[in-house]
Parts: sequence; C-alpha cells; structure tokens
Amino acid sequence: MEGVTVQKTMWKYDERAARVARVESAMLEGARNHFSREGYTEITVPHITKATGACENIDTLFPLDYFGERAYLCQTGQLYLETLIPKLGKTFTTGPSFRAEPDVDNRHLTEFTLLEIELETDFNGLLTEIEKTVRRMLLNTVDKAGEDISALGGKPEWVEECARNFQRIEYGDAVNLLEKPFGVKWGDDLKSRHEQYIVEKNNGYPTFITHFPKAIKFFNMRENAENAEIVNSADLIVNIGGECVGAAEREFTYENVRRRLLESPMLKRLESKGGGIGDFEWYLENMREHGSVPHAGCGIGLNRITQFMIGEADIRRSTPFAINRATVI
Amino acid sequence: MEGVTVQKTMWKYDERAARVARVESAMLEGARNHFSREGYTEITVPHITKATGACENIDTLFPLDYFGERAYLCQTGQLYLETLIPKLGKTFTTGPSFRAEPDVDNRHLTEFTLLEIELETDFNGLLTEIEKTVRRMLLNTVDKAGEDISALGGKPEWVEECARNFQRIEYGDAVNLLEKPFGVKWGDDLKSRHEQYIVEKNNGYPTFITHFPKAIKFFNMRENAENAEIVNSADLIVNIGGECVGAAEREFTYENVRRRLLESPMLKRLESKGGGIGDFEWYLENMREHGSVPHAGCGIGLNRITQFMIGEADIRRSTPFAINRATVI
Repeated sequence: MEGVTVQKTMWKYDERAARVARVESAMLEGARNHFSREGYTEITVPHITKATGACENIDTLFPLDYFGERAYLCQTGQLYLETLIPKLGKTFTTGPSFRAEPDVDNRHLTEFTLLEIELETDFNGLLTEIEKTVRRMLLNTVDKAGEDISALGGKPEWVEECARNFQRIEYGDAVNLLEKPFGVKWGDDLKSRHEQYIVEKNNGYPTFITHFPKAIKFFNMRENAENAEIVNSADLIVNIGGECVGAAEREFTYENVRRRLLESPMLKRLESKGGGIGDFEWYLENMREHGSVPHAGCGIGLNRITQFMIGEADIRRSTPFAINRATVI
Repeated sequence: MEGVTVQKTMWKYDERAARVARVESAMLEGARNHFSREGYTEITVPHITKATGACENIDTLFPLDYFGERAYLCQTGQLYLETLIPKLGKTFTTGPSFRAEPDVDNRHLTEFTLLEIELETDFNGLLTEIEKTVRRMLLNTVDKAGEDISALGGKPEWVEECARNFQRIEYGDAVNLLEKPFGVKWGDDLKSRHEQYIVEKNNGYPTFITHFPKAIKFFNMRENAENAEIVNSADLIVNIGGECVGAAEREFTYENVRRRLLESPMLKRLESKGGGIGDFEWYLENMREHGSVPHAGCGIGLNRITQFMIGEADIRRSTPFAINRATVI
C-alpha cells in the first residue's frame, strides 16, 4: 500500500448508470444474436498469458507474478481464437482487455470490454462481417434501449442512419486529405483528430480506413498482394468515439508468420524487456504442425461505440464501472 | 523469469477441443437466451479490484501491482451487481474468475468462467431462477451440441432427464445422511465425496444443498429468520462436476451487512494481510446512502457443468484453454 497519489473516485449508482448499463447490454445482445444466427462458436480464452496476449504496444502490459514466473494480463484473445479457426470456422469471445495506462483522463481506461471475432474469410468478407455485426449492435440498442440513448444525450434516429451508411477509404487517400490541413505524411499513424476529420468528410458516418502501412501495425496482419509495404487491415472510426474496431486479414503460413514476427518492432521491444520469440512458441508450433487456413478478424471496443451512440466525449461515462488508475476500489 | 519448476503443457487444437468449445458455447447461449427473455441487464464488472472482488477464501487472490498500489484479480462481480439491483432488478455478468491455486491436477484451475446473476427476489425465487437458468443451459446444449456431448463421452438423454429433475435437501438433513458413512458433523464444510454421495442418493440428479451454517459461508449471505446460525444459501451439486452453483439471499441493510462483515473470518484474514474494512467502503457507503432492496444471486461455474454433461472427471479437459500453473504459455 504505497505510492497512492491519485485521488480516488467513487462510482455513481444512479439512474444514469442504469441507463448506460442497458445500452451496453443491448449492444452485446445484438452482437451475440448475430453470432448465434451465423453459426459462430464462443471461445473462452485465457486472461493470464505470456506475450501472446499483447497487442502492438507491449509497454502497456500489466505484469503479474504467476507463482514466481512473469505473466501478463491479456489485451487480446486473437491468437487463441486463430488456432481454432481450421476446426471451427467462425469464432468470437468477449472479455476484459487490460492496459497499464497511468493517465486519469477522458480518453484512457485500464480495463475495457473487447468483443473479438475471428473467421475463415478474406479481407472483403471481413469488412462485410464487421458491418453486419456493428449494424446489429446499433439497431438492437436503438430497439431495446432507444429511450436510454435519448436520455443520455444521443439520437436514436442518427444511430439508425449511421448503421445503414458505413463508409470506406484507403489509408493512402486519407493521408492525401489530411496532408494540407494537418501535414500528415504516408507512414504516419493517424491521431484522433485526423480520424474525426475523415469521418466528418463522410457526413459523420462510421468509416473504415483500410490498407495501413505494415510498419505501424500488428505483426501478423497479412501483406497486401500488390504492395508488400501495406497490410490488409482496417480501423473502423465512429463520430466522437474514434477507433472502435481494429481489423485485419492474417498471415496464415508458418514461414510468413515467423518472418513477420522476427521483423516486427514488437519483438524488439519484447526482447529489450527480457522476453523473446519463445513467448510465441505454442502459436508458431501449432501453425507449423497443423497449418492454417486463410482467415481474418477484429476487436470491437464496446466503450467507443457507447460513446458514439450517446454522444459522450468522456470514456469514463461509457460504462457503469469505468476502471482507471483512480477507480480501483 | 525465475522459479519455473512445473513442466509446461501445450494445449491441443484438435477435434476434441472444437467439440468442447461448441458445448461451452451452447451453454452460454442457453443462459443468455433465458436472460434476454426475462429482461436481465448484462453488466460489465471490473476484474482488477480491491478485496471486494474476493470470494470467501482471500488466500487464493492473485495480487497485482497497480501503479504502486496493491490490487487483486477478481474472483466475483457479486458486490458490483448488487449495487445496481435497486435500479435494474435483474442483472448478470460473465467473465473470468481468478484463483491462485498452485496445484496442477484434475480439480484446480487458476482461471475459469463464472456466470453470475443477481436479482430482486427471495430465497425460493432464487432457487427457481437457478433451476430455470441451468435447465436452459443444459437443454440448449443438448439441442445445439448433442452430437458433441455424445462424442465426448456424455449422454444427451441423461442430461435432458437431469434438466427436468432438480432435487433439494437441507444441509442439516444432508449431515444426517453423511454422519454414519463419513462421520460428518453439523458445522463441517462438505467435501466433494460427501456431495457426490448426496447426489447418488438422489438418483444422480442435480441437487441443491440448502441452509448452510453461517460460519462457513460468505459474509453477506442472509441469516435465516428462524435460526440465526444458518444462512439462506444453496450449493447446486451435479454428478462428477460437483458444486457448479453457489447461491444465497443477501443481507441488504447497511447495519446488517456491516455487522456481518465485522464478524466474518474473511475480514480477520484480510486484516492479517494488511487490508481491512476500508476495502469495502464503497460498497458499504453505497448501501448506507441509497439503501437496497431484498435480493439474491449466484455464481455458475461453467467448467463444472461441462464436466457433468460430458462425464469428464478432469477439469483440464472441460474447456479448450484450461489454465493452471503449468499452462500459462
């Protein structure tokens, strides 16, 4: 019990919290109804993991003393879902994603709910599936919790309009639009204000930005067949909430995955922290032994979609028990 | 990276893993279909907590360095659900429950999926609701994954028969049955072999053991109106799997909850570890400020029900990625 420097915040158990809970519940129900209808299998993934539970930025992993061994709190179940794709075809999981973000502000949580899907499909199939899933989430929420959306400051009719008007733009074209107003260049990661500018250009509708540079993305995103400097990836950006989905086609041969992992900045950072390629042994060995099939997947951040639906800029107000450095009580 | 004394186990990504995944998925779907139909709200609870995330046995909490402060990986979301009951009436959550169990054997996992419900009802209403929920889980699994149950070694017709024949016995009566063969006395906690004996007496059907002694149960289980030495609690025991549900009516006035917490062995153990009643401040303060309503709830351990349905004595074979000390890879 030391180093307590951040003033504690109490959660509020009021009517607003109940409304936010109903919105979140209806979103999850909408997604799961879609998955049931489409024959997905729900997978229970581990939340105590080695580096295979990490997203791109391994600096935000929470380390855990696991019987004297170093483990981490997981950020994604992607690699676990991937191993079952050859047997199951369509999979999903829902659970907490942990980030060691010390900032107490309106943009960071240390724990949030991530809905992940992984399925046997190509890049276009993936984008279509994400549209269907998110559309079902939005429309079910309007249907079951429309009154709550309104009371919280959102507009159900606007959410419905957005659900039917997903937009797409390639990263390269987005950079062209952003160069003049913001000085963005090819290869730069896009910031929140850049993403919102692109969404505004698309009437505020949810917009996929696709085909990012390989260097700024996760190691196993599949290289584009025509240009090896870009990957078949997509971020779905919504008004106010920002990036609510990160998606990609995956590399699926042992040789490619291993090469890409060895080239990745993530592995270099992992090595500087005492880890290494051995952390990925089970994943690589599985691919070598059993092979895989072309597949793709995404992670859907629930809080960002809630922010979009209720028009709320503060992520701390997007779930009943928002967790950051100041709210672990 | 030190103290690695346990040989690592690799998961198997074979047809069996896929079948177990489909069974688990159908169970969850069955439960959630029931919750949707009955108007439950799904709640996202925190998984990094203070001692309020603990079950009875705080010795199995995983401690976590949370920005220099001590926190824990949660074992239950019960107290979080409870705070929203006056606003929402019926709530549920699904997620990982963490236990720092060092044993690598067929009975222990360090992480498993817990489905928790909390609702405005009395003790009998709770038992009825648990029967309905578990029945929907069993029947949906027979319906959607009956072939998988068979292939894994279970009998779908037997699962169906069990789903329609829940039994009940009071703890006192169970002790009377157990005294002669096992020497069990009133006040003893029941062991796995005792529970299985009771289930066998009931034709192998799922059996609620109710009205346990207060001293061996969680601090906020409600005292029985006629005998303050027992609490309105119930464990649901299934063949092979054992205790798959822990349930109770809750104390719901500030005075009673505070008194019971102060009397509890759990608080004494917590104090010996440097914690204290302050860990429960947000929960107690909420009850003092806003009051509560009569309510009850339970936690349903998925793995135990899978074991029952597929007739599998080894809990490591009850989910695709079973987590214990040897399997964090």
